[in-house]
Amino acid sequence: MSESKGESTTPQSAEVRIIGLRETPEVHPGDDIAQVVLDAAAATGVTLADGDVLVVTHKVISKAEGALVDLREVEPSELARRFAETWGKDPRYIEVVLRESDRILRMERGLIISRTRHGFICANAAVDASNVSGGEIVSLLPRDPDASAAALRAELGRRLGLDLAIVITDSFGRPWRNGITNVAIGVAGMQPIADYRGQPDDFGRVMSASILAVADEIASAAELVSGKVNRCPFIVVRGYDYPRGEGTGADLIMPDQMNLFR
Amino acid sequence: MSESKGESTTPQSAEVRIIGLRETPEVHPGDDIAQVVLDAAAATGVTLADGDVLVVTHKVISKAEGALVDLREVEPSELARRFAETWGKDPRYIEVVLRESDRILRMERGLIISRTRHGFICANAAVDASNVSGGEIVSLLPRDPDASAAALRAELGRRLGLDLAIVITDSFGRPWRNGITNVAIGVAGMQPIADYRGQPDDFGRVMSASILAVADEIASAAELVSGKVNRCPFIVVRGYDYPRGEGTGADLIMPDQMNLFR
Repeated sequence: MSESKGESTTPQSAEVRIIGLRETPEVHPGDDIAQVVLDAAAATGVTLADGDVLVVTHKVISKAEGALVDLREVEPSELARRFAETWGKDPRYIEVVLRESDRILRMERGLIISRTRHGFICANAAVDASNVSGGEIVSLLPRDPDASAAALRAELGRRLGLDLAIVITDSFGRPWRNGITNVAIGVAGMQPIADYRGQPDDFGRVMSASILAVADEIASAAELVSGKVNRCPFIVVRGYDYPRGEGTGADLIMPDQMNLFR
Repeated sequence: MSESKGESTTPQSAEVRIIGLRETPEVHPGDDIAQVVLDAAAATGVTLADGDVLVVTHKVISKAEGALVDLREVEPSELARRFAETWGKDPRYIEVVLRESDRILRMERGLIISRTRHGFICANAAVDASNVSGGEIVSLLPRDPDASAAALRAELGRRLGLDLAIVITDSFGRPWRNGITNVAIGVAGMQPIADYRGQPDDFGRVMSASILAVADEIASAAELVSGKVNRCPFIVVRGYDYPRGEGTGADLIMPDQMNLFR
């Protein structure tokens, strides 16, 4: 990877670069995640700059924070046992999914759709066995992804003297469309929503319904580089003039009563 | 905008570039959209290259194809009149939304959530008054966005001797999350889904649920450059090793019976 060529970026720049930081070693509970980022940037030859968005796959945060469960220590409930037996799943895994869930929307075909404690609606409460070392270990979502993002932003800001935005991601399914996409579950240093209401369009008319979930779009853009099988948990989005402010990933969660798509 | 620096891209390249083509003039029915693309690329100083994904905001396609309705020629139905009156909307606009809908999911608070003839579930059947010249003209979705994408790909391939992928986009809302995001409604020259099932993860385990809607992620990435208020309907995504094959945007529509998130 070559370093940024220092092109000047203007608001609504005509180019955005999605740069993957490579060579990240396996992260363990207690690791200093800011240092892991700095090492990865150095190894890749990328110097972080003011206005960059650092996108972080949540799993590396979960590992550093110890948001992991050893299935050998899980005693499945009766519900978990029955569902697992019907669908050929590991009852201990199902038990962890139930524990991470606030409210179950569906339990069908071996899949549980639920709302997590954070308010995210996703499959299997985002409990994941992939890309975790040790055959019996599963990862959970970070306890508070917005706090994780804010802490990483503060620490990188302190060490580098820079103003970065942080987006922590996971990949969720969605109704009506096939496939999962990367979305923002934790945000710091930016507004996750760009509100174009009240701005005139090209023909001078005021747009009424143009509220863009740009943090989710940033997360999706980063997935094009991180991929699913690469050890590339850190991605720099450079040249995007994101909405300034102190937003959170929680801002992206729609209150139930507002959900016309139910 | 500077031209590509000709950096070599490898599969799973560590950098993806999102390049907006600028200076696009207003498009009118019957315009040669391939020529509009070529003119925009030339004006921006970008040379299209093998393996680029050209992302196109659907509205420029709708305009070129004449997928426009003059509200002065629309006679609203009784249903359209009543709903419009209750919510302070234009009954002719509501009538066009109803005509473009296959099935109504909700009519609440002035918003109609429906399934379009294409199978997309979105707000107001994607009938849009913004960024269309002439105060009484609204735009519809292209009649067949996959056919539009295939035609543009074939024409650009013929003129340039290149193998490009095309993604035609619109911005849709989604349940449970605030804000709209850009998604793919028409695709040509690539598979819109990257299926990582069966590939081992970093720890050699086979991943079971890793089906990424990469065409939607490409659409979202492009929105970071096109913005909502800029006249930038063409965006080049460069350096992304997309899944080869002859997929369509329709591949992204989930059959009703598969929708566990309902």
